[in-house]
This record gives sequence, C-alpha cells and structure tokens, in this order.
Amino acid sequence: MINRIAILGTGLLGTSVGLALRSAGFRGVIAGWNRGPEHAELALSMGAIDSAAADPIEAARAAEVTVLAVPIFATIDFMERFAPVLGPDQLVTDVGSTKRIISECAARIYNNPDRAGFLPGHPMAGKERGGAALADANLFRGVVWLFTPDPQAKLSPRGAELAADWRTLVAAMGAKTLDLDAARHDELVAWVSHLPQFTATALSALLEEEVSDAPELKDVGGRALREMTRLGSSPWSMWRDIAMTNTEAVERALLALEQRLAHLRENLRTPELREQFEQANKFRRDQ
Amino acid sequence: MINRIAILGTGLLGTSVGLALRSAGFRGVIAGWNRGPEHAELALSMGAIDSAAADPIEAARAAEVTVLAVPIFATIDFMERFAPVLGPDQLVTDVGSTKRIISECAARIYNNPDRAGFLPGHPMAGKERGGAALADANLFRGVVWLFTPDPQAKLSPRGAELAADWRTLVAAMGAKTLDLDAARHDELVAWVSHLPQFTATALSALLEEEVSDAPELKDVGGRALREMTRLGSSPWSMWRDIAMTNTEAVERALLALEQRLAHLRENLRTPELREQFEQANKFRRDQ
Repeated sequence: MINRIAILGTGLLGTSVGLALRSAGFRGVIAGWNRGPEHAELALSMGAIDSAAADPIEAARAAEVTVLAVPIFATIDFMERFAPVLGPDQLVTDVGSTKRIISECAARIYNNPDRAGFLPGHPMAGKERGGAALADANLFRGVVWLFTPDPQAKLSPRGAELAADWRTLVAAMGAKTLDLDAARHDELVAWVSHLPQFTATALSALLEEEVSDAPELKDVGGRALREMTRLGSSPWSMWRDIAMTNTEAVERALLALEQRLAHLRENLRTPELREQFEQANKFRRDQ
Repeated sequence: MINRIAILGTGLLGTSVGLALRSAGFRGVIAGWNRGPEHAELALSMGAIDSAAADPIEAARAAEVTVLAVPIFATIDFMERFAPVLGPDQLVTDVGSTKRIISECAARIYNNPDRAGFLPGHPMAGKERGGAALADANLFRGVVWLFTPDPQAKLSPRGAELAADWRTLVAAMGAKTLDLDAARHDELVAWVSHLPQFTATALSALLEEEVSDAPELKDVGGRALREMTRLGSSPWSMWRDIAMTNTEAVERALLALEQRLAHLRENLRTPELREQFEQANKFRRDQ
C-alpha cells in the first residue's frame, strides 16, 4: 500500500483530499505544499497534511504518490518539472477539470517503464468558491471520480501497483471511480459541467448589468434566481484554464445553447414551446 | 375581518393558501373549487378547504374574498364572468405570475365603487411541479408576496377594507408584502424569474438531445448540472400563459442572454472572460 503522499495545492480539493484520506483511515504520511503558504498552514492546522513543504519538487521526490491539485496549466508545468526527477517507483495523479491536454503530456513524458507513472483523474466535486477553509472530508462521498488512463500506457510494475492503490484510496474516500477516454471526457464535461458554468456566469453578468440597481431586486428574486446564478460566484482563476484547454467543445456547446434560446424566443407564442418544455421534462425525468 | 374565502384552483398555490390560512389561525370558512374535482377532494382531505364547491360562480358569490389560483388566461376568464355577478362588498385577488394584463382587466371591470374590488397579487413562491399533493402550509414563509394595485382604483369602502384584511392575512401566512407598478413587475420578473426558467428549459431540452443517450451521463453530471436543469421539470401548462402575456419582455431578456453567451464564446481565450466572471461575481456578492 501507499505510505507517503504529497498533495501539491492545498486549496479546496487538495485539502479535502487530505481530510478524506485521514477520514478513510489512511495511516501514511501526507506532505502538503501550496504556492501561497498560508493555505498550506491552514491545511496543516486542519489536520489535512502532516507537514507543509517548502519546495514542491522535494515534496514530490519524497512521495510515492503525488497529487496535483492546482489549475490545469500549473499541473502541466509541474508534470514537466517532475518527469526528469521522479522514477518508476513513483506515481503522479491529478484532479484537473479537463483531461485531454494532461493525458497528452502524460503520454509524452510519463508512463514508460523507466519513468514515473501518471494517472489522470477528475473528481466531479467542488464548491462555487475555493480555498482550504471550505475543505470537507466528505466532499467526495457519493460523487464520481473519473480517470482517463491511456490504454497504451506502459507503467512500471510498481507504478501500476500505486495506480491501483490510489484507486482503492479514492473508493475509500467514498467516491465511485469510472474510466473514460480523455477526449470523450472533455466533450462530455463541456456539456454537463462547463456549459452550466458559463451559462450561470453569462446570466449573472447580464443581470448585474440589467437589474442590479433595482431596489426591489432582493425581494423579488426567488429560489429560481438564486439557483440559476449560484455558479456565478465561481472565480475566473478556476475557469480560465478550463476555457483555454477545452475551447472548441465549450464553443460548440455555447453556440448550441444560443441557438436553442433563440428558438424558444421565436416560439414563445407557438405550439413549439410545448415541445421544448416536454423535451426538457424528459431530460429531468430520465436523470 | 374576512369570514368567507373561496379558493378557485386548488393546485399547489391554491391548496397551499388554504393550508397557510389555517396555519395562520384563520377561523372563517374556506370553500374550494377545481376544474378537475379530484384536486379539490385532495385539498379537502388535506384540510386546506372546508368544502369542495360544484360551481365556481356560486362559490365566488358566497365569498367575501375570492382567490383566483389558476393560470393567467383562466384568471382573466373568471374575472370577466365574476364582474357582473359580484358586488361592492366583495373582493377578488389572484396569484398570477404576470400582472399587466390582469391589472388592465381589473381597471376595466372592477375597482369602481359600485363593483367588486380586485387586488392583483403574485407570491414569489412555487415548486417546479404543481398539484395539491405538493402543497405546503409554509410555502409562503419568508417569501415576498407582490401586489400591483392601481393608484387610480376606486374601491368601495368595504372593498378597500377587504383588500387591507387580505394583506394582513398574507402577512400572517409568513410572507412579506411589497407593492409594485404592474408594468414594472412584468419587466422585472422577465429578468429574475422568466429568464431563469426559459434558460433552464432550453438547457435541459438541449442536453436531452445532445447527451441523454450517453451511458456515463448519470455518473458524470454533478450538482451544477442538477441545479441548472431543475427548473427543466416545470410544466408547459404553467408557463404557456406567462410566455403569452409577457412576450416582449421575455423576448428582450432571452435575446440579451443569447448575446451575452455569444460574447463569452468569442472570448474564451481573451482577458474579457475575466471581466465577465468578475461582473457575475459582483452580482452574487450584492444579492
């Protein structure tokens, strides 16, 4: 089993991984690192990590499994810096929201028998705001933790063992694991995760412009408004890399929604409106 | 105070009004009527009404206050049928989601000293599905119950008294009352209620077409997806009249959202994306 884990990035996800590992009975050592050290100190004080590392490379070198819980481009950057200094007895995994670019990087500089292994992962969990303070040992309970392993990957025997052990730990944190092709992953999350986010952002930004100065707004807005704009709180810093690394799929999804809204708008007084409501009802019934 | 109330339409809202009145200590008589009598029977069995009336006109004639809790065109239809048979000692009120057309009808055939009074109302409460079975005595607790009274209205002294008493009962049900101009009401709810609904419908209908056959969908879709499509369950029957009676304002709001989504789509890789996220963040912070 795994004895030494390094969590790089002790924000919401990284710190929650530490707490969930402890809650699942993980008895090994967990080192943590964060670019802003105050979040590592917070994770330490919460019991999510055993020590706050000063240097991410040293932390990864000392670990059997390194968990990258940073934005996507920072993940790629760490992958490139770690590949030359890690060995075949080590595994790196991540929690990034898009997987194609990360999987391509893994195929290029990981997953040969003489190199460290890389298992691309994506827990379908989060909150509309980040930060260690909101971390939760139960964040992954009942959610799906996706993996997009490359069928061509040639992990070392120890790398494969660590990947299997990490999957066991993920299951112990309460998540259900599911394997997907990386390109299929990015296409699917464009529809079911990125499109809802950008829609909430567009709706919230529009309402800020159109009605935020209406004195009655606080009173008139009900549950529908709160719910449809909650994700409007999501920070750009979390979504910039997603927009950059899944651009084409998100563009397709946004364009399709623009066309669908135009179709509704042109049919507010025709029987076609009923068709659209019934199709929407069916989607919800089948979920 | 009011002694005899008739609730016409014992769906979710009408039945909840009956339950909330009882819960607030209303001791008078409540008659109920519903087009499909099984919902009136259900409301009766739930204790929301004291009797199920066979004829809506007779029920209204016997009441001091008649509450119309039916779709908007049915509300207009009842208003036209009741005006000739009710007198200045009676008040009619409603719970419809658009107010301009109803307020215009009220100005035309109610609210003269020799006629019944009409107080247009709109509780900002509901669920994504209707029906007496989902009714709740606490549905109006903490929500805003909007009224759009006409400043030119000339209610009879008894009509004015009943309108004041109805407001008192609404407050006793736990709602906060707020007066708005009818046209301003319709414009504002187009943004904060109708736009979120049609957006959820469009998103749900689109996803039904694009991804509903993906076997991984149930696993991959997280809280964001559930939340942004919950209103996709709303029935067309509830929204048809809203689309018909607030068409121009809803068209404007939908077109603005289409343009905003296109703007995001064209800026997924530019600094403008940050502006949009920050504007959305601001909307949420100020709510």
